[in-house]
Amino acid sequence: MSQPTAPTPTGASAPPPFHVYDTTLRDGAQQEGINLSVADKLTIAPMLDELGVGFIEGGWPGAVPKDTEFFKRAAKELDLRNAELAAFGATRKAGVRATDDPQVHALLDSEAPVVTLVAKFDVRHVERALRTTPDEGLAMITDTVTFLRREGRRVFVDAEHFFDGYRYDADFARRAVVTAFEAGAEVVALCDTNGGMLPDWVREIVQDVRAVAGPDALLGMHAHNDSGCAVANTLAAVDAGCTHVQGTVNGYGERTGNADLLSVVANLELKLGRQVLARDTDTPGGLTELTRIAHAISEVTNISPFARQPYVGASAFAHKAGLHASAIKVDPDLYQHADPELVGNDMRMLVSDMAGRASIELKGRQLGIDLAEHPDVLSRVVHRVKDAEAAGYTYEAADASFELVLVEELEGARPAYFRVESWRTIVERNGGRGTPATAEATVKLHAGGERIVSTGEGNGPVNALDHALRDALQRVYPELARFELIDFKVRILDQMQGTDAVTRVLIETTDGQTSWSTVGVGPNLIEASWEALTDSAIWGLRHLGVRPR
Amino acid sequence: MSQPTAPTPTGASAPPPFHVYDTTLRDGAQQEGINLSVADKLTIAPMLDELGVGFIEGGWPGAVPKDTEFFKRAAKELDLRNAELAAFGATRKAGVRATDDPQVHALLDSEAPVVTLVAKFDVRHVERALRTTPDEGLAMITDTVTFLRREGRRVFVDAEHFFDGYRYDADFARRAVVTAFEAGAEVVALCDTNGGMLPDWVREIVQDVRAVAGPDALLGMHAHNDSGCAVANTLAAVDAGCTHVQGTVNGYGERTGNADLLSVVANLELKLGRQVLARDTDTPGGLTELTRIAHAISEVTNISPFARQPYVGASAFAHKAGLHASAIKVDPDLYQHADPELVGNDMRMLVSDMAGRASIELKGRQLGIDLAEHPDVLSRVVHRVKDAEAAGYTYEAADASFELVLVEELEGARPAYFRVESWRTIVERNGGRGTPATAEATVKLHAGGERIVSTGEGNGPVNALDHALRDALQRVYPELARFELIDFKVRILDQMQGTDAVTRVLIETTDGQTSWSTVGVGPNLIEASWEALTDSAIWGLRHLGVRPR
Repeated sequence: MSQPTAPTPTGASAPPPFHVYDTTLRDGAQQEGINLSVADKLTIAPMLDELGVGFIEGGWPGAVPKDTEFFKRAAKELDLRNAELAAFGATRKAGVRATDDPQVHALLDSEAPVVTLVAKFDVRHVERALRTTPDEGLAMITDTVTFLRREGRRVFVDAEHFFDGYRYDADFARRAVVTAFEAGAEVVALCDTNGGMLPDWVREIVQDVRAVAGPDALLGMHAHNDSGCAVANTLAAVDAGCTHVQGTVNGYGERTGNADLLSVVANLELKLGRQVLARDTDTPGGLTELTRIAHAISEVTNISPFARQPYVGASAFAHKAGLHASAIKVDPDLYQHADPELVGNDMRMLVSDMAGRASIELKGRQLGIDLAEHPDVLSRVVHRVKDAEAAGYTYEAADASFELVLVEELEGARPAYFRVESWRTIVERNGGRGTPATAEATVKLHAGGERIVSTGEGNGPVNALDHALRDALQRVYPELARFELIDFKVRILDQMQGTDAVTRVLIETTDGQTSWSTVGVGPNLIEASWEALTDSAIWGLRHLGVRPR
Repeated sequence: MSQPTAPTPTGASAPPPFHVYDTTLRDGAQQEGINLSVADKLTIAPMLDELGVGFIEGGWPGAVPKDTEFFKRAAKELDLRNAELAAFGATRKAGVRATDDPQVHALLDSEAPVVTLVAKFDVRHVERALRTTPDEGLAMITDTVTFLRREGRRVFVDAEHFFDGYRYDADFARRAVVTAFEAGAEVVALCDTNGGMLPDWVREIVQDVRAVAGPDALLGMHAHNDSGCAVANTLAAVDAGCTHVQGTVNGYGERTGNADLLSVVANLELKLGRQVLARDTDTPGGLTELTRIAHAISEVTNISPFARQPYVGASAFAHKAGLHASAIKVDPDLYQHADPELVGNDMRMLVSDMAGRASIELKGRQLGIDLAEHPDVLSRVVHRVKDAEAAGYTYEAADASFELVLVEELEGARPAYFRVESWRTIVERNGGRGTPATAEATVKLHAGGERIVSTGEGNGPVNALDHALRDALQRVYPELARFELIDFKVRILDQMQGTDAVTRVLIETTDGQTSWSTVGVGPNLIEASWEALTDSAIWGLRHLGVRPR
């Protein structure tokens, strides 16, 4: 079932709504080492939508200026098919009317159709952190929910520290749940904020809350992984009657992270037979995109993917070759818990397996190149991609470089727009701390029958090289003047080797109409950048239909 | 309870034995990227013993030559206080007498007091992989167990593919369990070999097996993490009556890994009140060594520790929210699921963009600097950190740079080990695609009363600068020779500005004993790297107590 955009009618035949609520952009961003810009969030949100989650919590407008900006731009720039945006915020302050609390107004101003209010459900936090009375704690919930409902918003309540609070004072925790629903909250999400619960404890407590809140109340689960049980805790909560699950892509989050939403939805769909992701008939979406989207988002967060991550990790379906190799080929289901294709992953032991070919074929088709008609080319591309990926390349986020590989294998060579003779870049600083450094680059190349020498300056060596290369090429290909570098990412692979490690550079370029991504890899960051820069120029010129001159 | 070294007497008052069975050296070593030498295994085994596990599965003697060698050397060289060594191996081959099977004899020759026999408990594997009959499959168990028991060994049986087998043909799986116990097996460990079980399924199946095997039978659980539920599955099995848990340190293992034994024992001891690790009165051992041993073993396996690992990860008790810092200081138990000291970990305050006075004060205290006594300094540091973070710095992953900020504000300046006159780096490539690029750097600085000019080469510009800087400084500070760069991370901030964006570099350095992290930020990647490199040298020298020369 996909997520409803309005409360489901309570007719006996209506299936109960099930919410998949993603908080990667808010709670996931609390992870050590993650720092998402507004542009990052605008890149990730459509991926979550494509996966088919029902709700995307975008941040805390009013408290975090970046998040205020995100909602402003999201309202204009995002065109979501499946998901509703949710703005996260706190209930009103103690002793202030909701309508007088600027933080509450910032939630309205965000224009998000859903507001998720965090409130303290552990009486100790009400008394010691809010420094107010239990009754005022409950009134803060009532007033804020009522106010936002009156303003036409759907309101979800995150019951912070719910489980610890329940174990300390179950009566207060229960009263707070009833209070939130009575005020008009659509969902109360029970939070294991400190992450220390175990599945049996969760089940027992949720069953009690279900009895208190009534059979129609929508209860949710928000788990953290401090006991290593976040996924199991979420499943236990669903078994006990929760119909709203919160989590983050790749389990990002503070401390040990949140429940990995990808494992949760894969377990629910593949093992428990509940279809919880929205399915859009126009696009494949859903579980089959799980692996691709997990990796694409890790490129944006710049957090190395965890190879052992369930379902989507590079090792998740990798079998050490040996004794069982042929048995696995005959009877794969006896050796794996789920079909990797269902989550867009590959069984890795079999080098020329169908999944690898199929996904490259599909990719080719997306680029308008039908490789099914060229099985020999397809085989060469599969081998080349596997070799390149072993060397550190990733084509997941570099469609343009991948297309150039296809073109090279189909046509024998990439278009010869220019031939590089040499390049050099110099960075220097003449002075101590505080003196600015300078960067310049010189490029020598042959194009349009000429030998061109060009020098560029820039903030840094890659910027200087980009300027020098474009200055040189524009003399023969003025079409290039429109190209602009809009993103530049660096990832150090094999991090235990310090600056001796391999560097991967991803760049994104636009001509104002379309944008494309290219990749470069090498022990030398500058060299890797150069590879990505030249790929970008070649793809851009080819895309414009320019012939080599 | 510690592990008994012989079967427990069956008197009514005897507490049931509980086995913590570590298979890091056997099943953990199946992980992609792990390759343990005999020396590695001899290094890890005493750490496991110190932790207090009851059994250490060392490998498969007879099948893996390295493992044969390990048991030979272990018998002579290891002096284990708590743990028994277990040799892993298969039941006899189909159609061969146990006494005639060289692989079975190799298990005896290992001299391990415990032999763990793997046998197929899924009838499909008996028929399709062993290509024999169900009855012969059972006879293989009976004969091999009987033979080894007669030779005086304790025998455990790993019931391979047990859960999948039970779901396909419960009758065969049950018969195999009874067969193993009747032949004299002390333990039957139920294996979720493909790792796809969920906790409720495990509980139900274990309860049934418990009923079949009788109340005194020792049942074990061996879980893999393919559903993300390995720890919870193990706890569910214990709840249903298993008294033997298998797992690996750090969850190492094939695909998504085995159950992380560290999380399992921490949950059992801290949350379920069962003391399962052996306690030796002479040494601290036990849970308080959990974090140290987890990291020490990751040094031997050369697998980077996972920061989000429950209980022992670097982020497991790291708090980011500045808002709550003052509350955490007063009432830490309201904000963490367990006391980090109990597992040998630390609470860490991350200095993040929500930095407030309280979190910076707490951070200072962790570094041994009491800022409460210097309110004016504290104010200056708070302002400086806010400015720096607005410019792109992050101190949450750069403790050493943060400490230098504190030192500068407390002492008026950072230690003047050297004064930089200038530096320059050149990267060039003389040729087309495929020609390697070269990088060199020159550094001019003043230290020890001298002007030093030094040149370095490297894979890339940062590597070259690092070499040139260290070469120059070592002439005056030979202590620096031990420093080594072990991690280098680059993040482009505000990614919509392409190569004009701000670059943040984080580097980690070690002197073989401790490691520290520094940060540099700037529009120029090389300049940012230079800042992090020089901060690293200054912090390292200061930490060693070296005075400026």
